[in-house]
Amino acid sequence: MTGTIHDSDTTIQTIKDTVENFIQARDWEQFHSPKNLSMALAIEAAELMNIFKWQTSEAAWDALNDDKVRQDVEDELADIFVYALAFANRHKIDISSVIRSKMLKNGEKYPQAKFKGRY
Amino acid sequence: MTGTIHDSDTTIQTIKDTVENFIQARDWEQFHSPKNLSMALAIEAAELMNIFKWQTSEAAWDALNDDKVRQDVEDELADIFVYALAFANRHKIDISSVIRSKMLKNGEKYPQAKFKGRY
Amino acid sequence: MTGTIHDSDTTIQTIKDTVENFIQARDWEQFHSPKNLSMALAIEAAELMNIFKWQTSEAAWDALNDDKVRQDVEDELADIFVYALAFANRHKIDISSVIRSKMLKNGEKYPQAKFKGRY
Amino acid sequence: MTGTIHDSDTTIQTIKDTVENFIQARDWEQFHSPKNLSMALAIEAAELMNIFKWQTSEAAWDALNDDKVRQDVEDELADIFVYALAFANRHKIDISSVIRSKMLKNGEKYPQAKFKGRY
Repeated sequence: MTGTIHDSDTTIQTIKDTVENFIQARDWEQFHSPKNLSMALAIEAAELMNIFKWQTSEAAWDALNDDKVRQDVEDELADIFVYALAFANRHKIDISSVIRSKMLKNGEKYPQAKFKGRY
Repeated sequence: MTGTIHDSDTTIQTIKDTVENFIQARDWEQFHSPKNLSMALAIEAAELMNIFKWQTSEAAWDALNDDKVRQDVEDELADIFVYALAFANRHKIDISSVIRSKMLKNGEKYPQAKFKGRY
Repeated sequence: MTGTIHDSDTTIQTIKDTVENFIQARDWEQFHSPKNLSMALAIEAAELMNIFKWQTSEAAWDALNDDKVRQDVEDELADIFVYALAFANRHKIDISSVIRSKMLKNGEKYPQAKFKGRY
Repeated sequence: MTGTIHDSDTTIQTIKDTVENFIQARDWEQFHSPKNLSMALAIEAAELMNIFKWQTSEAAWDALNDDKVRQDVEDELADIFVYALAFANRHKIDISSVIRSKMLKNGEKYPQAKFKGRY
């Protein structure tokens, strides 16, 4: 689609700004204490879980082939990203840095040789 | 720091790839059904909440001024991003598209004039 | 109210049976794997949180003075109890035993003298 | 075991009192706003989920046959009950009443004839 921006050519800062502009336009920063945003994140994650709650593991793998389910999933995942980005904005957290720092820790905690194919 | 990459010059695809490489190197895709990943997201969000659980709203605002708390918060927020990115990778979801699509819906649901300063 | 049963004269087994009869009448045991029920519990807890999400600590203390909020809270708390009781039924867990066992552990972990007034 | 009390001969009020005594002995009522307790419930539910997170539905059904897993599950379920009972205590909620009231609503929402064997 003409004009569509994709993950390959969108910086993290760009979506941070999209979220920040939306929130500032509504003066909602006052509600976004880290405590409240952590609750909002858990609530959105619960809404995503709710889609798969009674499904077997096998059925859950296939669930996203249904267009309606896929739309619901994308909406809930978007909500999770929006609150996570709002959290990062509010507290000046550089997302790419904290992710790479965490992946390094995880790499030491779960060495490839030992954890290949098992959690 | 020389060589540090920040949100301003990191594309979403770049951090998607960082997460995907880590998971594929361990053959963990098999565990990442949407059901399981939605649980993992809710669990990480709960770990973030746990930091603020018994704090008053006021104390929670200040909590990130403490270096140790800030480190814990960054680690938990990173975990949330990692699982959300893994979810998007697994199901070929373009994050920038679904966020912008959701922000448009939210813009209609919460018009600026009516929701300025109130949820 | 005539015929009302209260917590003082209702055994835990009685409410376990109430929940079990409801579930068996609908053949729902098949959906109640421990994995699924743990998700259901987290989802209901998130619905309870959602009531207080944007409130300050102070406002949350007063929220239950409102009849509508109190009704919503009671409904969500009931849902949490129902799934927790269903979990105990499914896996033959004696609730009074596990609670008292856990309180003993907590008593050792949080001795009164040291934790008076602080978590 | 001599002296053990079981669900058949323990009233709900008895376990409410057990929990209340523990909390009052530590002056912890001050931390138990409905907002904070709802977070505590979600966090304990997440810890229960964490046990089953990467298991298939089938494996999760069998997980409680392992003594160590069963002990962990009982501890987490006890925590959920403790916070739910603390919530009811703090706000003078009669648990047997709200459960039976909710089951009546659920009975109308999910009539047996229509929901037999399906959610």
